[in-house]
Amino acid sequence: MRYSPLLTDLYELTMLAGYLEEGMTEQQALFDLFFRTNPYEGGYAVFAGLGPALEYLENLRFTPEELAYLGTVGLFKPRFIDYLRDFRFRGKVTAPPEGTLVFAGEPLLSVEGTLAEAQFVETALLTIINYQTLVATKAARMVHAAAGGKVVEFGLRRAHGPNGGLSCARAACVGGVRGSSNVLAGMEYGIPLRGTQAHSWIMAFPDELTSFRAYAAAFPDSCILLVDTWDTLKSGVPHAIIVAGELRGRGRRLRGIRIDSGDLVYLSRQARRMLDDAGFPEVEIVGSNDLDEYLIDSMKNEGSCIDIYGVGTRLATCSGPGGGALGGVYKLAEMEGRPLLKRSDDPAKSTIPGRKKLLRGVTVEGRFLQDIICLEGEEPQVGDIVYDPMNPLRQVTLPAGVRWIDLRGTVMEEGVRCGGSETLDVMADRSGREVTLLPEGCDRFAHPHRYKVSVTARLSRLREQLLGEHKAD
Amino acid sequence: MRYSPLLTDLYELTMLAGYLEEGMTEQQALFDLFFRTNPYEGGYAVFAGLGPALEYLENLRFTPEELAYLGTVGLFKPRFIDYLRDFRFRGKVTAPPEGTLVFAGEPLLSVEGTLAEAQFVETALLTIINYQTLVATKAARMVHAAAGGKVVEFGLRRAHGPNGGLSCARAACVGGVRGSSNVLAGMEYGIPLRGTQAHSWIMAFPDELTSFRAYAAAFPDSCILLVDTWDTLKSGVPHAIIVAGELRGRGRRLRGIRIDSGDLVYLSRQARRMLDDAGFPEVEIVGSNDLDEYLIDSMKNEGSCIDIYGVGTRLATCSGPGGGALGGVYKLAEMEGRPLLKRSDDPAKSTIPGRKKLLRGVTVEGRFLQDIICLEGEEPQVGDIVYDPMNPLRQVTLPAGVRWIDLRGTVMEEGVRCGGSETLDVMADRSGREVTLLPEGCDRFAHPHRYKVSVTARLSRLREQLLGEHKAD
Repeated sequence: MRYSPLLTDLYELTMLAGYLEEGMTEQQALFDLFFRTNPYEGGYAVFAGLGPALEYLENLRFTPEELAYLGTVGLFKPRFIDYLRDFRFRGKVTAPPEGTLVFAGEPLLSVEGTLAEAQFVETALLTIINYQTLVATKAARMVHAAAGGKVVEFGLRRAHGPNGGLSCARAACVGGVRGSSNVLAGMEYGIPLRGTQAHSWIMAFPDELTSFRAYAAAFPDSCILLVDTWDTLKSGVPHAIIVAGELRGRGRRLRGIRIDSGDLVYLSRQARRMLDDAGFPEVEIVGSNDLDEYLIDSMKNEGSCIDIYGVGTRLATCSGPGGGALGGVYKLAEMEGRPLLKRSDDPAKSTIPGRKKLLRGVTVEGRFLQDIICLEGEEPQVGDIVYDPMNPLRQVTLPAGVRWIDLRGTVMEEGVRCGGSETLDVMADRSGREVTLLPEGCDRFAHPHRYKVSVTARLSRLREQLLGEHKAD
Repeated sequence: MRYSPLLTDLYELTMLAGYLEEGMTEQQALFDLFFRTNPYEGGYAVFAGLGPALEYLENLRFTPEELAYLGTVGLFKPRFIDYLRDFRFRGKVTAPPEGTLVFAGEPLLSVEGTLAEAQFVETALLTIINYQTLVATKAARMVHAAAGGKVVEFGLRRAHGPNGGLSCARAACVGGVRGSSNVLAGMEYGIPLRGTQAHSWIMAFPDELTSFRAYAAAFPDSCILLVDTWDTLKSGVPHAIIVAGELRGRGRRLRGIRIDSGDLVYLSRQARRMLDDAGFPEVEIVGSNDLDEYLIDSMKNEGSCIDIYGVGTRLATCSGPGGGALGGVYKLAEMEGRPLLKRSDDPAKSTIPGRKKLLRGVTVEGRFLQDIICLEGEEPQVGDIVYDPMNPLRQVTLPAGVRWIDLRGTVMEEGVRCGGSETLDVMADRSGREVTLLPEGCDRFAHPHRYKVSVTARLSRLREQLLGEHKAD
């Protein structure tokens, strides 16, 4: 799928034109992409969207039609349009692999190159990474709540248009969801497809049993029946049991039933009992209807008998407190080798300058201890004091017995991707595993324990120095 | 932009395959698309997305690659894949024009055709109409709050991926927004483009004044300066005033300044005074930073001096109570001429069966009185009693002096669009005008007066009769 280079904010183009006028396009720049608050008021985020982002960068070029349109906007000189004709991204990108747990304030993508290319890609990178990271995080929370139950994605109709649904399906898999109703996502990303029938199927037949039999005849090996069109327990489940018996008589089996309304805990428990009593303990129960991590968690606690959670609206729209949007930003950290900082009204919210590394401390038990942001070339040592970037009064002395892992690698060099791409399953395994390695309480859905992210003394001093310079302006 | 027919839920394909097995594909069906609750807990919604929806329907066909993929899914027989080869949408669509105010429970799109074609398009229609209607409604609320101030859209980086941003820009225009930062939206839809520069532009130069001068040199006729990088009132505005003077000296004018952080009311008032005192009353002030209708409204009340509101995150993500997703659904209303109803646990929430018209009553003063859903062929008469579809105890007697307008027309016949398409400006004018024609209090952002939507006696009786039949099952 091609992302047009015009899928960007106008200011990326006006700035580019301005840099061309000023002869600044070839200056060397380094940008960091990060977010300032963990989404959903939660303890972590799941990094996602890198694959599509790199695909965008690798294929960035303007078509003749796009250039012709820009010529009509009334802002750009022919010289600039000419310049865009050969415009490519030939920079370097540093990032963690998708599915890695990341935290507020950490540099995720760092983009190095000419000021022209590194600035221009801002909007597209933010658009791709913001949404996919937000969805992957929501998905990981739901998968964590399901505690072994399967979660599948049905969010297309509530996403931001058809292609929004495609991003949603992909990112959900990075967060551990294991199937989607979105057929194009199946084709594009190899995601296993899931689906049954709508209420309209049931209504299109003279009666429910006839409609169930017709579906079982058409799909004897993948038959899941929607049982809540008329009355779940009085009509839907009894009819499903009849069809389960008929399928068994033909050497097949009914795969499941789906409940899409009503009290899912009560209905799933009753349905489970009815299916078991009729001799069909293997028939799975799919539950759907505005589910999210809070509901899944509470339903589990109440003893619901749902085996597969179908999640749609609340995943695609990233609903919940602190959801809706990831406030990812893309800030200049270095120009021509000179570290830079964007000051904020609240100095604690100023950006972290310079060329940085992101390290994760892992204990001898293999659990995550904390992360450190340091300058390139630095190595943390036992006994080092490190600082909360929001408030240097909060300090930690680094203990012994900790392995420091560089979370990020070079994923693109001179505009070309490094190494092969991972499968979504590998990313899903990573996010699922990493959630279990967090310090206790960091995986809580509300009011989690705060995972520590510190800066080194050298980086902290550099930041204070640059803040001081601006005060002196 | 092509929408792949695979951008759909798997169940649309499994149902289609099932109908083919049963020999039911050619049965005649009628579906209604509607939503059950006004978004944002508000008094109305702005219908949007029809143009892209019709484009999807008109161009619906499977490519050989898509058919080959479906052959690999393990669900579909070769006969079905063959059937899809010539699958087209050749049905009829009835809908109001975009920008029309619509209300919970009203049939928006009605789709008639074979069961095959009318069912298959469900997911795509919902995906397109749900999001665009939700954005157009949010935009209309913001434009209404701005009360004459201009509103422009900057939401791309917070949308569901790049193409989500494109839908957002289009739908925002239907709701009355008059410009976008999204360059592709400019090319695709002719939307006027808006944009300035990022903080990184300011940071890339040795100092702020130099960066302002460089931008003014590059764009002397469309220069808006971002004044909050270092200190809005001590540095940004004074530097902008210097550049405004220099531009004036060259016979040009500074178009505006943009404030993107801090207390926008205070800063805009101070900046306005400084600009006026310096002799630049014509320089406009653009304000942005997580704005929505509530903030714009409260800022206006506090006397903010913002001329142009830049809205992004909260528009693209449709944030706010009752936002995030429009719960649009697509339900079977008739099969082979037989009216159908989907019963709900709560009978009041059952669907409205049959082939319907949607009428709007307009008073002699030209204001909206109420809407009526009736059966085709019915005409409301003075003295008729009409019923709240949620509760027939709530009744209204139709007064004299009311003109009843059929809100919907045939927009597609035999799969081909009827008539030309309107411009976004025409749609925006419609939504803006209709908001002012609502009964008093219906435009309130929270706890609005409820606009009446009734069903006729005949339709109410048909519904009760069908509900009774299902009880008897």
